Amino acid sequence: MDLKTRIEQGLEENLARCCVAGSPPRLGEAMRYAVFPGGARIRPKLCLSVALTCGDDEPALATAAASAIEFLHCASLVHDDLPIFDDADTRRGKPATHHAYSSQLALLAGDALIVLAFEALSRAPTSECTRMARLVRIVSAAVGMPFGIVAGQAWESEDGAILADYQRAKTGSLFAAATAAGAAAAGAEASLWQTLGERLGEAYQVADDISDVMGDPDKLGKPIGQDATHGRPNAVALHGLDGATSRLKTLVSEAIDSIPPSPGQAALKRQIVEESKRFMPESVVASVA
Amino acid sequence: MDLKTRIEQGLEENLARCCVAGSPPRLGEAMRYAVFPGGARIRPKLCLSVALTCGDDEPALATAAASAIEFLHCASLVHDDLPIFDDADTRRGKPATHHAYSSQLALLAGDALIVLAFEALSRAPTSECTRMARLVRIVSAAVGMPFGIVAGQAWESEDGAILADYQRAKTGSLFAAATAAGAAAAGAEASLWQTLGERLGEAYQVADDISDVMGDPDKLGKPIGQDATHGRPNAVALHGLDGATSRLKTLVSEAIDSIPPSPGQAALKRQIVEESKRFMPESVVASVA
Repeated sequence: MDLKTRIEQGLEENLARCCVAGSPPRLGEAMRYAVFPGGARIRPKLCLSVALTCGDDEPALATAAASAIEFLHCASLVHDDLPIFDDADTRRGKPATHHAYSSQLALLAGDALIVLAFEALSRAPTSECTRMARLVRIVSAAVGMPFGIVAGQAWESEDGAILADYQRAKTGSLFAAATAAGAAAAGAEASLWQTLGERLGEAYQVADDISDVMGDPDKLGKPIGQDATHGRPNAVALHGLDGATSRLKTLVSEAIDSIPPSPGQAALKRQIVEESKRFMPESVVASVA
Repeated sequence: MDLKTRIEQGLEENLARCCVAGSPPRLGEAMRYAVFPGGARIRPKLCLSVALTCGDDEPALATAAASAIEFLHCASLVHDDLPIFDDADTRRGKPATHHAYSSQLALLAGDALIVLAFEALSRAPTSECTRMARLVRIVSAAVGMPFGIVAGQAWESEDGAILADYQRAKTGSLFAAATAAGAAAAGAEASLWQTLGERLGEAYQVADDISDVMGDPDKLGKPIGQDATHGRPNAVALHGLDGATSRLKTLVSEAIDSIPPSPGQAALKRQIVEESKRFMPESVVASVA
């Protein structure tokens, strides 16, 4: 089964348990709307790629970890798009969840997706229960306080944010959890895989900052200029386009160099270069590949 | 250590990990504000009381379960109080979290408390990891879709709600999780303790409906008449005061009768009668005690 199919099936199986007779149907629909169709599914792909490189001896657990990470990502998008934050009209090329449903159902869909992430982990069959416990710890640290996604989002409404801290929390944390969780699900040492996710997450954020300044809203499926509109830190605004591009190259190189020695090391390197092309400006891709 | 101290210490220890240097300080404060000072802490008390009745052989895990349940309860209050839902001015006798901070920080504090609940479970030391996995399942089912708190809250903005389903999801689910989790943390059969929580949860909701119609806002620490204002189902509005009071008596009796035989059975019965007095109208207390 290819990664894409495995990810979509994992998401679908978990969501199917939410949408049953006797449950509020619109909330179930809103959850589904927030998850399907997906974006590039970069985080769950990264999670499963690392699990495969580490042997993937508990595939159901690795799929649950990938699903959990994508549910949390989708939850953060739905909450961030709400009128009290970004007030975004569109996401992934369609109306944002609160426009398609309501702010109430969007908020609850986000809450329900956060819970579903942990439920997915707890339901995955595993012969080694301590792996599951480790996954709950890795995933909760990536989204909660003090340094997870919610902390990153809070820095947007609090004074004193340092750009690197903000980006590490807002984006890097879930990428780092994706690689760490992929390793942990396969019984490997999660901490060795942390740097790969951290660097890729930071790279993704810098690329997103560049897109927000120079991207094509039709291709991106979301409006541009949002950082300036909302007074958020942006790498291009701070370091100029050349500075941001140079930083992006460094980050992708560091990510690739951090991959621990393993039988699948070469294949994973190739795959990460491939995946990075999806989110990097063409000029940067040419220099890394 | 008495239950109250054990609960407050559990909450404090988990929150302390959230509020550290380098994290957004206002979000940490908002989380704390939403948790301290508490209300009656009925749910975590119930959780620990059941754990103690079942032997409480893993006290750190039981305390983590009680903390998780209270964090989820606080999160639901903070989100429900937001302007897009109840638009409540006060909670527990002080300004609602979104008034004391902002809607943004209140929403994020709720998200962070949901995550913290699962993190607390995953960090609790236990010699039997499967108990922790069971706790994550019990707790996630109580708050997520299809039948947990978020489903109950969604019924407030969706058509076709049946009062019993709505109340079971909105209130009963977390009470049922409190008793089931208390048992599971102590290695006992969780399903035997489910009915106790379900009946107490429904009783609490009916009592709350009565308070919302006839209570004293100063004593309650929150405004009354909210169900009518927000068009929510209310047991008094549906069945009259006599009907609601009679239902409340039946529920508390059924709760007490459901307690499985155990060494601490008699003591637990006494304690539940005592605790029920806190939330029941005086006329009902007189007839049950």
